[in-house]
Amino acid sequence: MNEASVNLEEAGISEGISEVIVTTQSAAGERNAAPIGIITTMNEQEQGEIKYFMKLYKGSRTLANVLETNTLAANVTDDVVLFVKVAFENLSEKYFTDFEGMPVLKEANAWIVFTTVLVEESSEYFRFRLMPKAVEIRRKEVKAINRGRNAVIEAAVLATRFEITKDEQGREEMRKERERYNEIVKKCGGRREKEAMRVLQEKCPFR
Amino acid sequence: MNEASVNLEEAGISEGISEVIVTTQSAAGERNAAPIGIITTMNEQEQGEIKYFMKLYKGSRTLANVLETNTLAANVTDDVVLFVKVAFENLSEKYFTDFEGMPVLKEANAWIVFTTVLVEESSEYFRFRLMPKAVEIRRKEVKAINRGRNAVIEAAVLATRFEITKDEQGREEMRKERERYNEIVKKCGGRREKEAMRVLQEKCPFR
Repeated sequence: MNEASVNLEEAGISEGISEVIVTTQSAAGERNAAPIGIITTMNEQEQGEIKYFMKLYKGSRTLANVLETNTLAANVTDDVVLFVKVAFENLSEKYFTDFEGMPVLKEANAWIVFTTVLVEESSEYFRFRLMPKAVEIRRKEVKAINRGRNAVIEAAVLATRFEITKDEQGREEMRKERERYNEIVKKCGGRREKEAMRVLQEKCPFR
Repeated sequence: MNEASVNLEEAGISEGISEVIVTTQSAAGERNAAPIGIITTMNEQEQGEIKYFMKLYKGSRTLANVLETNTLAANVTDDVVLFVKVAFENLSEKYFTDFEGMPVLKEANAWIVFTTVLVEESSEYFRFRLMPKAVEIRRKEVKAINRGRNAVIEAAVLATRFEITKDEQGREEMRKERERYNEIVKKCGGRREKEAMRVLQEKCPFR
């Protein structure tokens, strides 16, 4: 695979931030999954060259694994229950399979294995450039926009922020925001979205 | 097509509210497009029977056309620029093509033609049951979740509400909410999402 020329659009990765589930393993083979964004830039000055980046935060299992192996896999999916689960718990072995020597998620619509190149270290995170090494598209589909599906993702992002917010006023605003997402899911979501919100409520009750 | 047994999951319509672009024509052949939700219910008491409904508001062009023809087409797409355009302007002829005698959008990923059956009339809207008559899946794809794409849809929904909100406090809260969506699009969106927000800003400047 000619790394410089790969366009991952067909595998679901477009300009901006694509939310994926990143799977990694330690040198000893322990597997991990976490929801992280792939940052895709298109540089018009460089004949539209497309580059992929990812920020990995210090203290995260994903960062520790990537520092050991220089490799990660991106699992493209819009399964909101899966997103909520990986954000707050360790996925059991039954969710995983293997692709090109990497752990990946059975249910994903596409897998992309990247080699990582460290490009920046800040006080909070390491930023890596991602070089595509292997791609497999597993399942293409048609899906209408569902505002409930979107609201689950926003509620999950909010929940991870809530956990690290200490001041009570900030937390109170987040509770109100969460309530809005709950209402959208109740109105627009299907069973899957409602199940995701139930899991989220259990994992992060916003107390 | 056996209407009672059709499951539109493969065409992108799932349980909950699926946001689609509805295309209709008047008896005289004038075409219209508008963003509307398909409400999909699954009744466990009735062996999981799936039913499709739609609320059409009084005064809308879509309702007038449906009352004349008892037919509408749902265009499944996640093109946010298209959603914003149809919400605030009349689409020009170049966007349309024909499918089973109905106007549909060239760029949609799936088309579904429904026969409509009036089931409820309230003071504000008519509610119809939708009976699938013809389906065409045009393009399947893989797409990662993009929070910017989602934020454009929420901003467009907010804009349609802003237009009918009169009290200044309510409007002020909406301006703040809009600002949050702007920030998400700036951070997570690609060119397409930013273009959609530009069109939205032009059509509904929240003043």
